Amino acid sequence: MITSSSNARVKQVVQWQTKAKERREAGIFLTEGFKLFQEAPGESVREVYLSEDAMEKIKADPILVGKLRQTGYETVSGEVFQKMSDTRTPQGILCVVKRPEYTLEQLLNSETPLLIVLESVQDPGNLGTILRTGEGAGVTGMILGGETADIFNPKTIRATMGSIFRVPFIYAEDLMKILEILRQKNIRTYAAHLSGKSYYDSFSFRTGAAFLIGNEGNGLSPEITAQAESLLKIPMDGQVESLNAAVAAALLMYEARRQRKNLNGRMEE
Amino acid sequence: MITSSSNARVKQVVQWQTKAKERREAGIFLTEGFKLFQEAPGESVREVYLSEDAMEKIKADPILVGKLRQTGYETVSGEVFQKMSDTRTPQGILCVVKRPEYTLEQLLNSETPLLIVLESVQDPGNLGTILRTGEGAGVTGMILGGETADIFNPKTIRATMGSIFRVPFIYAEDLMKILEILRQKNIRTYAAHLSGKSYYDSFSFRTGAAFLIGNEGNGLSPEITAQAESLLKIPMDGQVESLNAAVAAALLMYEARRQRKNLNGRMEE
Repeated sequence: MITSSSNARVKQVVQWQTKAKERREAGIFLTEGFKLFQEAPGESVREVYLSEDAMEKIKADPILVGKLRQTGYETVSGEVFQKMSDTRTPQGILCVVKRPEYTLEQLLNSETPLLIVLESVQDPGNLGTILRTGEGAGVTGMILGGETADIFNPKTIRATMGSIFRVPFIYAEDLMKILEILRQKNIRTYAAHLSGKSYYDSFSFRTGAAFLIGNEGNGLSPEITAQAESLLKIPMDGQVESLNAAVAAALLMYEARRQRKNLNGRMEE
Repeated sequence: MITSSSNARVKQVVQWQTKAKERREAGIFLTEGFKLFQEAPGESVREVYLSEDAMEKIKADPILVGKLRQTGYETVSGEVFQKMSDTRTPQGILCVVKRPEYTLEQLLNSETPLLIVLESVQDPGNLGTILRTGEGAGVTGMILGGETADIFNPKTIRATMGSIFRVPFIYAEDLMKILEILRQKNIRTYAAHLSGKSYYDSFSFRTGAAFLIGNEGNGLSPEITAQAESLLKIPMDGQVESLNAAVAAALLMYEARRQRKNLNGRMEE
């Protein structure tokens, strides 16, 4: 059992919690909690750290015990675990996981892709929530462009609730080039924009579709907006000028889902 | 100009930033930034603090100058302002605002109320986002029950983007009693729940309706769920077990909005 926070592996994990560059160079990200441990593909889990207390709880759960046998693990004292953890009340299980890698081809590998394209979404919680909602809505992939936050930020990972393991995504160095490729593949691009003339539920998203979502404060850049085939508007009452980025993305993705799955049968009144 | 952070008023603001009890006892909350200053009802603004830099910017804006003439203000040095602020890069304007007070009667003062009822929503950002989305969707009010976070938390205020001034809300000491009153007023209550048998878009929300949204980790309590007239389900693909509370609330509120405003005309394909 590791009982000293000057242990080299402990110090490395602490670095990874806060330094995006070190995580990137190592090709890994960190997850905390039982749910993410359960959902992590066993072959991608590189290291597992358990607090003493968590070890006691796990013994009662044969599935967790089986998975730990597959991944291996290291026990650490409660005090050391607290230092390694990104949360105030840690669950006592932390994993170092190999990053998944996807190509644009994989994201487009569907008859009618449904993509979400982010330009400079900066809040880690919003980013994770969009990925989580995207899995629920059945998106085929997410493209992260501009100054979008690090998807492997611990807060983002937490907000994905496991979708990080299942929804393919890529970082786009050149978003304009990606939009050009989408056009060639007949995937229609839609930008949620105040100057949109039609409401979002008046479009058909049954063909290949990509929703462009912009920065929390500034929205989409004029350059990216100009590349969108259609501007769509989310109606807003009162004095609301815009919606939270994750909320706007959710409304668009679930409208696409509704149309694609024909779930819009209404009850008779 | 205040240049010392040991100034009594500065120390009071610092207390208010972090201590919910002191804010409550004083009957106030704090806002930061130009947008919230502009949207705050002038008669509710008790104190305004401006950093030196902000003062320079404001001079060019006659609307802001006019409002400052109405509210009065105090200038503070940049260093002191940073101490007073809850944000890392403050805009340089902070207001002490009198809390709005509403009654349940006011929230129900509509032919077909559309309410959002929260049970123990704990994330300040989610809470503020729900209020903001609620204004956009046209809800007539919000009821905060259980261990719901403090709506006057600085993070929540920020996330409301000004809706805090416009959407009526009350804290419910006894949520069961409130649900009983809603029943008497023929307002139908809907709980988003995994065991719901019908999807949310198969119900009609054109009559008085209230959506019950539960805690981020645990959902609605069994007691409150049992009081709901209908359980509804938000469909989810993949392995998603639930959606973020603010996202779930947004999907329900915007479905109600769509039905009420008849915006669901589809384009021909």
